[in-house]
Amino acid sequence: MQVAYTPAEIASIVGAQRTAGHATHAVTDIAALTAARAGDLSFLGNTKYKAQVATSAATVILLPLDYAGEPRADQVFLFVENPSVALARLCARIEQSLWPKPIPGIHPSAVIDPTAVVDPTAHIGPLCVIEAGARIGPGTVLQASVFIGQGASLGADCFLLPGAMVAAACTLGRRVRLQPGAVVGSDGFGYEFVNGRHEKVPQIGIVAIGDDVEIGANATLDRARFSRTVVGEGTKIDNLVQIAHNVIIGRHCILCAQVGISGSTTLEDYCVMGGQAGAAGHLTFGKGSKVGAQAGVTTDLAPGSYVLGNPAIPVMLERRIAILSQRLPDLFKRVDRLEQPVRPE
Amino acid sequence: MQVAYTPAEIASIVGAQRTAGHATHAVTDIAALTAARAGDLSFLGNTKYKAQVATSAATVILLPLDYAGEPRADQVFLFVENPSVALARLCARIEQSLWPKPIPGIHPSAVIDPTAVVDPTAHIGPLCVIEAGARIGPGTVLQASVFIGQGASLGADCFLLPGAMVAAACTLGRRVRLQPGAVVGSDGFGYEFVNGRHEKVPQIGIVAIGDDVEIGANATLDRARFSRTVVGEGTKIDNLVQIAHNVIIGRHCILCAQVGISGSTTLEDYCVMGGQAGAAGHLTFGKGSKVGAQAGVTTDLAPGSYVLGNPAIPVMLERRIAILSQRLPDLFKRVDRLEQPVRPE
Amino acid sequence: MQVAYTPAEIASIVGAQRTAGHATHAVTDIAALTAARAGDLSFLGNTKYKAQVATSAATVILLPLDYAGEPRADQVFLFVENPSVALARLCARIEQSLWPKPIPGIHPSAVIDPTAVVDPTAHIGPLCVIEAGARIGPGTVLQASVFIGQGASLGADCFLLPGAMVAAACTLGRRVRLQPGAVVGSDGFGYEFVNGRHEKVPQIGIVAIGDDVEIGANATLDRARFSRTVVGEGTKIDNLVQIAHNVIIGRHCILCAQVGISGSTTLEDYCVMGGQAGAAGHLTFGKGSKVGAQAGVTTDLAPGSYVLGNPAIPVMLERRIAILSQRLPDLFKRVDRLEQPVRPE
Repeated sequence: MQVAYTPAEIASIVGAQRTAGHATHAVTDIAALTAARAGDLSFLGNTKYKAQVATSAATVILLPLDYAGEPRADQVFLFVENPSVALARLCARIEQSLWPKPIPGIHPSAVIDPTAVVDPTAHIGPLCVIEAGARIGPGTVLQASVFIGQGASLGADCFLLPGAMVAAACTLGRRVRLQPGAVVGSDGFGYEFVNGRHEKVPQIGIVAIGDDVEIGANATLDRARFSRTVVGEGTKIDNLVQIAHNVIIGRHCILCAQVGISGSTTLEDYCVMGGQAGAAGHLTFGKGSKVGAQAGVTTDLAPGSYVLGNPAIPVMLERRIAILSQRLPDLFKRVDRLEQPVRPE
Repeated sequence: MQVAYTPAEIASIVGAQRTAGHATHAVTDIAALTAARAGDLSFLGNTKYKAQVATSAATVILLPLDYAGEPRADQVFLFVENPSVALARLCARIEQSLWPKPIPGIHPSAVIDPTAVVDPTAHIGPLCVIEAGARIGPGTVLQASVFIGQGASLGADCFLLPGAMVAAACTLGRRVRLQPGAVVGSDGFGYEFVNGRHEKVPQIGIVAIGDDVEIGANATLDRARFSRTVVGEGTKIDNLVQIAHNVIIGRHCILCAQVGISGSTTLEDYCVMGGQAGAAGHLTFGKGSKVGAQAGVTTDLAPGSYVLGNPAIPVMLERRIAILSQRLPDLFKRVDRLEQPVRPE
Repeated sequence: MQVAYTPAEIASIVGAQRTAGHATHAVTDIAALTAARAGDLSFLGNTKYKAQVATSAATVILLPLDYAGEPRADQVFLFVENPSVALARLCARIEQSLWPKPIPGIHPSAVIDPTAVVDPTAHIGPLCVIEAGARIGPGTVLQASVFIGQGASLGADCFLLPGAMVAAACTLGRRVRLQPGAVVGSDGFGYEFVNGRHEKVPQIGIVAIGDDVEIGANATLDRARFSRTVVGEGTKIDNLVQIAHNVIIGRHCILCAQVGISGSTTLEDYCVMGGQAGAAGHLTFGKGSKVGAQAGVTTDLAPGSYVLGNPAIPVMLERRIAILSQRLPDLFKRVDRLEQPVRPE
């Protein structure tokens, strides 16, 4: 990092309630307790690592109010309500200082259709393309080489990283963040089998994305066959996730990397899917359902379900089966023995 | 959607054989029977939803010829041979009206090598790159920010969406459609392990793609080590699919999202792989083989096979095992009981 | 291919120790022994294909020194120490001839911040973007539409294919190769759940990539929450792989296509993960661990482990369970029989 803060500056940023010790070094980096060296800030985010504080070489350590212990020489302890939240606050400050939000304006190399409407407070970076009739909201940033299709609409304060794409007629709410290479609005995968050939079914719907959604790098969201593919407010989608046409995702869901959701499936609010999990088509996952990593869901899920495996079943049963499966070699031997004729003793 | 059709216009587009009812609304959107509101068109694509017709608020409903029932007030029934096909026909018309094919010409921001040959009826959108010796066929569209490598060749009437890439020397047939971010011709993943290091094996083959192939968003197709990676005519490949070097895919196959096929494997015609399924290398899948979602295939498949699981086995056996596995806790108890010494009564 | 070599030229390139036969054709392509036709070169890389040599129509065949047999009319045998290595040497020559390294210089359409430092021997292709303070080393090539973020640093002789991206502050060593669409430095997927919403945790660390690393098409590597996500020297990463924040990958590892590694997991040197395998977060895989295709690893692995399945267990046990599982239908029947009351005879 190319930043440096004195312990006093950090105390002020995180709102430390108490300070102990002195340090001459400025803080120029952040590290875990055991990895930290002079010039690093560290933190006790989980009490199970408490013992690591005493031997940490960090120059500054964020600690909970009830931590009992004294800093070493040339070390500062900062006591705060919640060290993890304090760290996030510091990181936000560092981020702003490292990578300040670009100033409004349109780079001369961007190609913008004259009928597109770009808010004067938006930032359109180099080599972006904005097609006819598209609308870019106030404060929105297209970093570089971003594509916005015909008639697409982006709300206020969105941030689209390089190579992100929003295809024709799709809509983003406010504060939507697209990571590099994310694709919103590719064609749904729909064909009819006619005379031995797969004939394309036109995909004329859109993707509609709510406020505060984040979409990961190279993730793909297909436009609806007709009507809308939907991602609800506050939902976070990780890298390389696939969302098929007419999927409806509720609010505040979490989809980890490489998840795949087949066409017309609905996730209600607060669902979570672990990495590489998959969902068949035309299903409904009730509110707050959890799907374990690599699970393959083939049935509707009741609200609050937690499933694992393929086909996915309740997590406790799946785990029990996994354990019993490892005892199959023994079970086969036991049945072999039972089948032996009883010998007279 | 920004379209509007009168019921009479729709009757004409879909070739309705009979009409019933009257409506004052124009149709401006499409929706499922239960979701439809005034101004929407809906359709009865599957007879199991027959009961929903009577209560649907759609302004226009496409129905099979043998449907018995009367439209409500301000509602029109259109009777057609096949409502799904009729809908597809209507959608194609809407698509054409929403997003007409771009007119021929080369955007001034495109960077085209003077030795490339671009047909005068092709459309080269903004910020495309076409390298030396590449050939672009008649009627082909590169929407924006598309990359065509040295000596690559695209047939007639291809459509490449933003960020699609065709690397050096690769070939596309006619009417090939690449979704955003699709990569044709990345290097195959080949190394030799020499003195503790993985030394790269040059990948000098190509990818050859037949007519009427569609490739999904951010899918990746590797060039051959030498000779060709092949995708046969009419095959459809979904988003985020990985095709390794020297894979040969037959005609009219379907590869769902996030499928991965390892090097030198061959799929004969009409194979289907479900989402997130994988194939090991150097295998052959016989004509019409089906591989279930998330399956991991490690052996050749006979023509017409249908397999599931990892390692993939015939679907009926895999399903039976899944059911019996859920009874393992009980089976272990039963064997425990059998092992109890018989008590004298 | 658009190359042609006489048999004598090939003998010289591969360093043949002995030649047999004569041929009038030039060699213009490479093919497997059974697929080869006149004008093709083929090779005996694996002795199990020995019998195919006698009937191969290849014009030139690379053979091991101890191969006994005579060429057909119009055919040349070239005897070498190791035919696979000889072929790789020939392919490298062909590659160089087909696709020579671009000459130094900056394409006028590239957008380069005046504070970026581009070595005069680097090649910056059309429509690349290089942000403020970035550094591009000698001999490095950005082919086209490549994005280099603020303060990022690339060593000597890197090669970045179209659409590859290196985000702010990330670093590449020497001779790093990024395939098309590869993303280095997307945000880590980190949120805190506060008042029913997932609040973004700033991701201010970087990705640091060692020498001789290759990263596949549309693969994604997330920047660290703080500190660094690391890929060690000589590691090769295939297409569509996902590396989460703060992952540490050792030297000379192999990650096959569509692998996913969750946050803060460490792979020591020489680990191998098969296609579509996944690793949970905060794990350590010991040196030389192997993870089979589609496995889901949920525990630390001892050095030299070889695991399979989900949850991943030692490969021998997993394979034994797979076989026994297929015998479950029979086992249930056997237990049913055992439970029958013993009939008096």
